[in-house]
Amino acid sequence: MKNRIITVSRQFGSGGRTIGKEVAERLGLKCYDAEIIEKVAEQSGMSKEYIAECGEYTSYRTWLTGMFASGRGINGISNQDYIWVAQNKVILDIAREGPCVIVGRCADYILRDEADLLKVFIHADMAKRAERIVKLYGENSETPEKRLRDKDKRRAAYYKFYTELEWGDAIHYDVALDSGKLGISKCVDVIVDLYNTKPVEGEDWLK
Amino acid sequence: MKNRIITVSRQFGSGGRTIGKEVAERLGLKCYDAEIIEKVAEQSGMSKEYIAECGEYTSYRTWLTGMFASGRGINGISNQDYIWVAQNKVILDIAREGPCVIVGRCADYILRDEADLLKVFIHADMAKRAERIVKLYGENSETPEKRLRDKDKRRAAYYKFYTELEWGDAIHYDVALDSGKLGISKCVDVIVDLYNTKPVEGEDWLK
Repeated sequence: MKNRIITVSRQFGSGGRTIGKEVAERLGLKCYDAEIIEKVAEQSGMSKEYIAECGEYTSYRTWLTGMFASGRGINGISNQDYIWVAQNKVILDIAREGPCVIVGRCADYILRDEADLLKVFIHADMAKRAERIVKLYGENSETPEKRLRDKDKRRAAYYKFYTELEWGDAIHYDVALDSGKLGISKCVDVIVDLYNTKPVEGEDWLK
Repeated sequence: MKNRIITVSRQFGSGGRTIGKEVAERLGLKCYDAEIIEKVAEQSGMSKEYIAECGEYTSYRTWLTGMFASGRGINGISNQDYIWVAQNKVILDIAREGPCVIVGRCADYILRDEADLLKVFIHADMAKRAERIVKLYGENSETPEKRLRDKDKRRAAYYKFYTELEWGDAIHYDVALDSGKLGISKCVDVIVDLYNTKPVEGEDWLK
């Protein structure tokens, strides 16, 4: 039987990681986020910072190196592709171990045939996310809005490149929630409730 | 104070209308769906069938008439634009009357500054929706999949034309649910719960 797994895709600054962790705590499950980066780092010998960046975002460097067909990494494939393959393997191994929560890293796509998924997408409006990232990560030379737009664009490009799907299109997720509007705690409640509910078949669907 | 209103956008065959009705019943609210068409019909003198079609779908005829700048209706504007304006007025009037549920017709966009909205999007996969439309509306000369693809495409085009937004993009909705996966009743439960919950501010968002 396939393991029941929650995947949390999220906009940067939407609190998706916090939501994933709280959901896991409430359900007594393991939550994988930074752990995936650590495992990929162990296997590849690359730095965690580099993997965090290249394992979820199309970087400007990748765009450039792709354009000039240079920047090839191990075995002649690009570092980004190498990390994608390593990350796939790590996520598949995790999914076979047991029920859990996995945050980000295209796990919804990677596990589409491998697990009994509850696919979650968390988003919030720009103002709410800007407030959150300044509180959590501090200010830097760029405005929070510019940082968010940049992250959104590169994450969507990464998702599209490897999955050929539109990141954030509601139809790819079982549930998508506006955390800025509904609140972090309410999002956790809804996801926990949906994880615990067995869908009713037949009659319910055709009424 | 703005009225608290639930807008239900939905893919054809996803059970969104049924969900909207059940939510309204549970909350003791009025549900507006066909009633909007009736009101627009009264005001415009056009048939209900024509309004149902032109008030939510870009029709092939509209595309053609648009291309050749013919097919002008009342006062020199196209029938589709005329219905859009009439529909806007009807929806704004409804929203001022009191809390309610409104199904479809871009109400999420029309009321964006006029009401305290809970914006819902309901979708389901092709197989589930095909099963549902054949049960509810019967077979016809086209396959259910072709009917669904056609409806999806035209509804998205209509939404985009008048709102300049991507229909079904998760970020436009407070909650998006896969009714085929979660079940009709569960979707109703989630929406009723979210309507009744007052979001927690401050601490909850920045934790």
